[in-house]
Amino acid sequence: MKAAERPLSERENAAWRAFYEMQELLRGRLEQHLEADSGLSNADYTVLVALSEAPQGQQRAYELSRRLAWEKSRLHHQLTRMCGRGLVERLNGDGRAIYVAITPGGRAALEAAVPPHRRHVRHLFLDRLTPEQIDQLADISRTILDGLDTS
Amino acid sequence: MKAAERPLSERENAAWRAFYEMQELLRGRLEQHLEADSGLSNADYTVLVALSEAPQGQQRAYELSRRLAWEKSRLHHQLTRMCGRGLVERLNGDGRAIYVAITPGGRAALEAAVPPHRRHVRHLFLDRLTPEQIDQLADISRTILDGLDTS
Repeated sequence: MKAAERPLSERENAAWRAFYEMQELLRGRLEQHLEADSGLSNADYTVLVALSEAPQGQQRAYELSRRLAWEKSRLHHQLTRMCGRGLVERLNGDGRAIYVAITPGGRAALEAAVPPHRRHVRHLFLDRLTPEQIDQLADISRTILDGLDTS
Repeated sequence: MKAAERPLSERENAAWRAFYEMQELLRGRLEQHLEADSGLSNADYTVLVALSEAPQGQQRAYELSRRLAWEKSRLHHQLTRMCGRGLVERLNGDGRAIYVAITPGGRAALEAAVPPHRRHVRHLFLDRLTPEQIDQLADISRTILDGLDTS
């Protein structure tokens, strides 16, 4: 039996299910708050944060889809909706490259969204954990991310 | 300044971002595998697991939306798609109650999906962590879940 075929132990199964349920519910709850406070979805917010941190507030669509690990068609539809709302714009680069840039309206929307979002992240998540747990979670997250990069 | 207004420390911010990015990428990667292996989305899989574990394989739609923390309209659209594919069916209960039941086809789809999904969960997630980290993550997840229940 290959290692990956082993059934999950009770402990592994319980940990995986608790983790999965936690991140599902937390995502949902944060998105409800984000939409109520700022009219943005999690996906809108994620794109705006990524672009706001890119040089000149713009990034190749290809790079963005790689960074977010979104399928091309998912990013395409997401960007079309965001363009329609004036949050981002598409720019033609050299050759066939398409760039996406955050607009001034997108920056304003993000700046308005950050403080309430941060309060909810603190209230629902960070303030519930000990400093030690926060460090444990950071280590665990980085370990999983490293593995995702290489597998 | 209220506690929730404090800006995030660098350590908190780094931990939150690593966690958020990890769960986004992991979700995306697992969903790609699930769709390729079994033709199911994460949402399909989550609904099928929840119903398969409910008594008689059925649950009130209201309870299901509460348990998954999905908005009513999200659940409605999801169930309509799944009914169309024969994975679940809607049943009328007493009064205005709507029940959702997993069909034999839904059970077969879930049974086929579980082994490859479990392999990917093991490979991308559980096997990357030490037993100690798995326990830490379970504790962290339960703490956050308890807080979400009461806030």
